Amino acid sequence: MPYFDAASSAPLHPVARQALVAALDEGWADPARLYREGRRARLLLDAAREAMAEAVGCRADELVFTSSGTSAVHSGVAGALAGRRRAGRHLIVSAVEHSSVLHAAEVHRGEGGSVTEVPVLRTGAVSPEAYADALRPDTALACLQSANHEVGTEQPVAAVAAACRAAGVPLLVDAAQSLVWGPVEGDWSLLTGSAHKWGGPSGVGLLVVRKGVRYAPQGPVDERESGRAPGFENIPGIVAAAASLRAVRAEAAAESARLRELTDRIRARVPELVPDVEVVGDPVRRLPHLLTFSCLYVDGETLLHELDREGFSVSSGSSCTSSTLTPSHVLKAMGVLTEGNVRVSLPLGTSEEDADRFLEVLPGAVSTVREKLGAPVHAPRAPAAEEALTVDALGRRCPIPVIELAKVIDDVPLGGTIRVLSDDEAARLDIPAWCAMRGQEYVGEEPADHGSAYVVRRTS
Amino acid sequence: MPYFDAASSAPLHPVARQALVAALDEGWADPARLYREGRRARLLLDAAREAMAEAVGCRADELVFTSSGTSAVHSGVAGALAGRRRAGRHLIVSAVEHSSVLHAAEVHRGEGGSVTEVPVLRTGAVSPEAYADALRPDTALACLQSANHEVGTEQPVAAVAAACRAAGVPLLVDAAQSLVWGPVEGDWSLLTGSAHKWGGPSGVGLLVVRKGVRYAPQGPVDERESGRAPGFENIPGIVAAAASLRAVRAEAAAESARLRELTDRIRARVPELVPDVEVVGDPVRRLPHLLTFSCLYVDGETLLHELDREGFSVSSGSSCTSSTLTPSHVLKAMGVLTEGNVRVSLPLGTSEEDADRFLEVLPGAVSTVREKLGAPVHAPRAPAAEEALTVDALGRRCPIPVIELAKVIDDVPLGGTIRVLSDDEAARLDIPAWCAMRGQEYVGEEPADHGSAYVVRRTS
Repeated sequence: MPYFDAASSAPLHPVARQALVAALDEGWADPARLYREGRRARLLLDAAREAMAEAVGCRADELVFTSSGTSAVHSGVAGALAGRRRAGRHLIVSAVEHSSVLHAAEVHRGEGGSVTEVPVLRTGAVSPEAYADALRPDTALACLQSANHEVGTEQPVAAVAAACRAAGVPLLVDAAQSLVWGPVEGDWSLLTGSAHKWGGPSGVGLLVVRKGVRYAPQGPVDERESGRAPGFENIPGIVAAAASLRAVRAEAAAESARLRELTDRIRARVPELVPDVEVVGDPVRRLPHLLTFSCLYVDGETLLHELDREGFSVSSGSSCTSSTLTPSHVLKAMGVLTEGNVRVSLPLGTSEEDADRFLEVLPGAVSTVREKLGAPVHAPRAPAAEEALTVDALGRRCPIPVIELAKVIDDVPLGGTIRVLSDDEAARLDIPAWCAMRGQEYVGEEPADHGSAYVVRRTS
Repeated sequence: MPYFDAASSAPLHPVARQALVAALDEGWADPARLYREGRRARLLLDAAREAMAEAVGCRADELVFTSSGTSAVHSGVAGALAGRRRAGRHLIVSAVEHSSVLHAAEVHRGEGGSVTEVPVLRTGAVSPEAYADALRPDTALACLQSANHEVGTEQPVAAVAAACRAAGVPLLVDAAQSLVWGPVEGDWSLLTGSAHKWGGPSGVGLLVVRKGVRYAPQGPVDERESGRAPGFENIPGIVAAAASLRAVRAEAAAESARLRELTDRIRARVPELVPDVEVVGDPVRRLPHLLTFSCLYVDGETLLHELDREGFSVSSGSSCTSSTLTPSHVLKAMGVLTEGNVRVSLPLGTSEEDADRFLEVLPGAVSTVREKLGAPVHAPRAPAAEEALTVDALGRRCPIPVIELAKVIDDVPLGGTIRVLSDDEAARLDIPAWCAMRGQEYVGEEPADHGSAYVVRRTS
């Protein structure tokens, strides 16, 4: 039963399990106490901090343990903004950051701060120049992920860090997706991570604040973790987190090369095996274990169910798979198709057989979904009546508006236009994306009585 | 090697260990995902929530898991204050709350809110009338612990909850110390707890918000735990927390009676075995496993070391054992002696033999410390010269000022006064406490060139 969603949470690494169980006996006491149980707990905590700092590439006294990657991001952003309050209240984030960064930015905006979201290229990467252009004299903090969690694209962290350094602005790097493979390059100022992303236990995050970075912890604090992460330390979890990061790093070089072959194979084969697919994200500068593609005329949730029935656990950024029925902000910012989206992220040790079996199973799963939805099958249709030049997809959710468009495009005379009426948010993204994939011209969006009319010109 | 500091952190309960290890295999995936690993994690999380809610005495949808008791308190106080912002910005806490509550109150004060600290009786309990008197039309939230963590005194939660209910003010109960023994009585509105206090793992807290209580989560949130506790759920920890609470509750009635006998014995014997001791806290309305006493002429840190050498792990609220060199705010609020303070909190299963051995070891440990410090030994001294009527203890830390006072009190003629010069914060508390214990009159504090002069009249 292959689990291909390591980017959500990696299965617990055997070393993490072993270290966790071993630390249960000595790691339960309060490390602030002076008696022997407290001293033992303190020793475990100190050793874990040393090991983690070495793996991250920082000093032990720059690193604190938090209760999750999310909490590290929330604390780190708030503390760095407050520490630089005198410089100003401007925050820069990329448009494709993890939701924890965007939520922290929202709170900052709600408190009267200003936020610039740097757009990304179609690969999902920011351009270092565009990022540098966002720097202002009142910029207090800049945030950039090391690599994107949905499409795997690596960000130009070193170049952006250099630009920030030149402007005297600290850069916070959310390294949750990449720490498993190695330390983050470049001259960053703050860094966050999450143990369960590399096979460590849940309940452990890390926050690094380089010496010399102005930092003022926000909210109530106590004396634990240098006053930066309140609450009793989860020492068994912390020990397991540090031990497992060392363990995965020992195999990182070999495993990275092996998984990159598998993901390269899937990236190459999927468009050959499945019609109307767009593989997204940077093909080269990317995480070795992660790839993402979107399938036209497919409902993401149904596809996930089909793949789950075949034994494959993957995730999706399609709107139908989110509780808010909005498509992934990452795919949206990249301007790529959001419907029928599938993210494959291979855990360490994924076998070639499982990857190949995924390629065997996928085409059938996609066909099944397309059949259920009545998607077009590339056969030319009989010319339809004049009224077909407006498609009414009001009240229908993704991917139906695109399916309806595709069904009638062949009825449109070359050079003629067709209007798709839709009140689904995803249509605004997916109709232009479909046009780009199909070589048709997307003319634009017009207001309509209900929803919008999306105008497409047939050019091929 | 008896560990007598369960109130700091209880050793991991065997059931917690077993449940944690068992849940590692099924509890690592994201419970928000729809594939089988996610569904399994969700089942574990839901079952743990049901079990925990039953033990706490609330509905499952009123309870969320947090990353610590501290984080539950911080979130609960901030969310309840924000939810009642229209009512006003007044917060009530008792003077003896856990530091997490007081830190949250400090933040509220810093943001322009007002805070009333309700004083306590010499037992450590608030009077329900005094608490009710603090309620105002603009009171947004009231906080009261179920039982005190340093002296074990139970608070009159039901009576205070009734007064709050009558005033339309929600009451938040920090139940960290008492949940091991049973649910909290009375009509409270919010409740917090911490798993490692009952033998569950560290890294798990709980926050209950009763239906109908206005609550607005503060800071960045995500979709996890009803939007009240952001960050990836620590499901193995949560499962272990719920399982261990059920397990300790099954033995709570019998164990409570057994430990109360042991703590009653220690409370009764300590003053017989050790001269100049004050046992503090309510003798009856108290936690069954916890007792606290203070020894005159003793330095808390040295006493802890002596007891540690004898194999006993206990804690202390004396100033010399705190990183800030200030005595425990709890002892201070109670107006009891803070020097030579020892808290004994017995974990479940503590043997009678260990309790008795503690009583054997304690007198020698106290004598050793007193000898090192040159404390008085009750022998009348030769009359001293006139200048001895001022004792200069400037620059000397607790318990030296009190020791110097005790050394010369017999030289003071009956009805005469003596001045103790001291710049140690603890002297302000301990000199009046010594007078109360010794039947001497504490006249008051006077300004001096350095520190203060504490004036004592010899009346016996």
